[in-house]
Amino acid sequence: MLGFSRRRMALTFPRAGMSAKRPPIEYEEATAEVRAVYDDIMATRKTDWVNNFWKVLAHDPPTLRRIWANIKQVMGPGTLDPLTKELLYVAVSASNGCLYCIASHGAAARSKGMTEAQYSELLAIVGLANETNRLVTALGVAIDPQFL
Amino acid sequence: MLGFSRRRMALTFPRAGMSAKRPPIEYEEATAEVRAVYDDIMATRKTDWVNNFWKVLAHDPPTLRRIWANIKQVMGPGTLDPLTKELLYVAVSASNGCLYCIASHGAAARSKGMTEAQYSELLAIVGLANETNRLVTALGVAIDPQFL
Amino acid sequence: MLGFSRRRMALTFPRAGMSAKRPPIEYEEATAEVRAVYDDIMATRKTDWVNNFWKVLAHDPPTLRRIWANIKQVMGPGTLDPLTKELLYVAVSASNGCLYCIASHGAAARSKGMTEAQYSELLAIVGLANETNRLVTALGVAIDPQFL
Amino acid sequence: MLGFSRRRMALTFPRAGMSAKRPPIEYEEATAEVRAVYDDIMATRKTDWVNNFWKVLAHDPPTLRRIWANIKQVMGPGTLDPLTKELLYVAVSASNGCLYCIASHGAAARSKGMTEAQYSELLAIVGLANETNRLVTALGVAIDPQFL
Amino acid sequence: MLGFSRRRMALTFPRAGMSAKRPPIEYEEATAEVRAVYDDIMATRKTDWVNNFWKVLAHDPPTLRRIWANIKQVMGPGTLDPLTKELLYVAVSASNGCLYCIASHGAAARSKGMTEAQYSELLAIVGLANETNRLVTALGVAIDPQFL
Amino acid sequence: MLGFSRRRMALTFPRAGMSAKRPPIEYEEATAEVRAVYDDIMATRKTDWVNNFWKVLAHDPPTLRRIWANIKQVMGPGTLDPLTKELLYVAVSASNGCLYCIASHGAAARSKGMTEAQYSELLAIVGLANETNRLVTALGVAIDPQFL
Repeated sequence: MLGFSRRRMALTFPRAGMSAKRPPIEYEEATAEVRAVYDDIMATRKTDWVNNFWKVLAHDPPTLRRIWANIKQVMGPGTLDPLTKELLYVAVSASNGCLYCIASHGAAARSKGMTEAQYSELLAIVGLANETNRLVTALGVAIDPQFL
Repeated sequence: MLGFSRRRMALTFPRAGMSAKRPPIEYEEATAEVRAVYDDIMATRKTDWVNNFWKVLAHDPPTLRRIWANIKQVMGPGTLDPLTKELLYVAVSASNGCLYCIASHGAAARSKGMTEAQYSELLAIVGLANETNRLVTALGVAIDPQFL
Repeated sequence: MLGFSRRRMALTFPRAGMSAKRPPIEYEEATAEVRAVYDDIMATRKTDWVNNFWKVLAHDPPTLRRIWANIKQVMGPGTLDPLTKELLYVAVSASNGCLYCIASHGAAARSKGMTEAQYSELLAIVGLANETNRLVTALGVAIDPQFL
Repeated sequence: MLGFSRRRMALTFPRAGMSAKRPPIEYEEATAEVRAVYDDIMATRKTDWVNNFWKVLAHDPPTLRRIWANIKQVMGPGTLDPLTKELLYVAVSASNGCLYCIASHGAAARSKGMTEAQYSELLAIVGLANETNRLVTALGVAIDPQFL
Repeated sequence: MLGFSRRRMALTFPRAGMSAKRPPIEYEEATAEVRAVYDDIMATRKTDWVNNFWKVLAHDPPTLRRIWANIKQVMGPGTLDPLTKELLYVAVSASNGCLYCIASHGAAARSKGMTEAQYSELLAIVGLANETNRLVTALGVAIDPQFL
Repeated sequence: MLGFSRRRMALTFPRAGMSAKRPPIEYEEATAEVRAVYDDIMATRKTDWVNNFWKVLAHDPPTLRRIWANIKQVMGPGTLDPLTKELLYVAVSASNGCLYCIASHGAAARSKGMTEAQYSELLAIVGLANETNRLVTALGVAIDPQFL
């Protein structure tokens, strides 16, 4: 071996036309198919912008449509009120450490009325549940017959 | 090596007086220190029994007292209503796959009014959040300035 | 406190008509709405039975329909061949420790040609990736410019 | 569709000669290659039996050899004493909810001197770290310059 | 729809007086209640500064007090020596990928004597346990009777 | 207490000669032992550079050698083709949220032929498996006898 160069191995790694990271696709540059989803997102949410998650998913239009359809169904009207749904989404995202999801669903929760005191309580529950979940599992606690 | 016996290696592994698994400690066999916590659990919850989690934690009284004090504070009166708190606990536990915790906090949520339709919606949110959490993180989606 | 009874607290916990665990709903007892999904699952998979996952989801018909539509789209024809798709599903399920999912998607992978030697190699990758994922994250390794 | 039978779809699912679950391979039925690893495990640990993990891994001899070589190196003599190494293994396994690993490395830790009081303290740390890990991550706490 | 503006939706998202991210609260701007906890942290640790985790938790004084009381009890004197306790905390945090927690508890471990060679061994155990935890769980290895 | 200074506690925290973060060790500054591994990595991969993961692991030569030996064995020739192996590695890394691992193994997968459409399908499977894994586990779905 003659040297130890750090120059880019263009022939083997990231080939031409392929980027490792997908940039957001803005409305102006989107196809009609993608714009239709963006339009539905904005109409459903009564906003005039679309957040980055959808703009990055837009590189794969079938997934964009599918995930939006899922969110629309799951987070739409039901027996749990809209704020509670957002709180649950934030709690799972906080437990999983998804900062983007905490930010986006946290903003949605705040817009539906979540106070900072409620957010503090939510985080306290997420933290404590993660503690007791580990203790219960590690100790192999048997489910009480009263719970079955 | 002469053979391949499966007889118990009593001298090296699990030594006398040590059990790998901790059985629940019933009220009748508990110390006064442990009974005091059991009594407070039952008084606070207005029930006449204590579930297995506490009976297994009772092998370590300082932890029993500490975890109960945490639960009492975090799940006690606050700005989130008691049902919402239980729903959040169930959601995190479902996301983490703690079956005991789903059973115990699910029972608590039902006792506070959670319907089966609401539980279905909760599980749907837990599932979908786990899906989008992975997509968002793997794609490295940048947080929109609107969320900051 | 007078006693420490373990009798069921029927009035507070699991209320009448609510069960903590959802039993599978068989075809014979299913509604027309649920049967339509079961029929589509069997027709799509060219089998004459439906596995328990769907029968348990059937307690919540909108979720049953939604998850099946997702699976049908994601696991259907695409640019990755059907066996590779199942291998990826098994790998993620093995990494997450979902025994049911390993069993069901493992069976699907075997029916599409996965050999036991291939399954061994898949598990070895799952294990090693979990090891290096932790090392990389804990060490905070910076992404090489060649990868960007 | 004429019926809804639950008979086994022998032709499509689990094919002949393939089992979804791998039974332990006992010494007597093992190949010379596998026996050599079993012998080294027993000699290294000064025991006359091999636990199920290795007997199940034995279906894939290269993985059996590889994982044993890893364990031998990582858990062998070093700058951390043997008991501390086992405590760390148990803590990670408890955090991940691997009951088999808690049992096997817990037994190893007990054989090296871990007391029940120490195990209680270990579990308390595992629980609390899982709580604070979530709080820190969800809150996006910036690393203090003092730690860099 | 007339356009696709990215201007901030001030009325719906992050409302006035609510920030998505909580800045550290310095001693000078803290309430007496918060200062009392800061003082106890510094006195207990014999330092003259408080790290960011506590300053961010300070937005929720009851949680600040509660988590500090937990840390003080769990990480205080016991049957495991202080260094081992920090090593366990670091190991769980490394397994969970909490960089802040690795930094803060890693610093504490170093101040109690952890060498770089020991840290390397700790990380190797964390990595390997994560590998074998997945293999064991995915393979459904049965617990040996010797471990029960 | 007289003040609340943020100056570095040099005597207690990060001691002289110890850094909390390990910088990459370049070829030129590496020992012969480390260079031998770097040389083997480059020869095996037919490249003239080594990525950061190995350069950071190089602070602990036995771990550097061990992990490289594992990668070489697990990712080397077998019954799964090289592209499928990389896809599986990327999928597990995406599920675990290891951005470095997605970048490095994603680059390797692209160099072996992975298209962007295939990467989109892979991510869709990772996301959906994470959703159904949680639903299945939380619902405690029993494994169908057909899968055993």
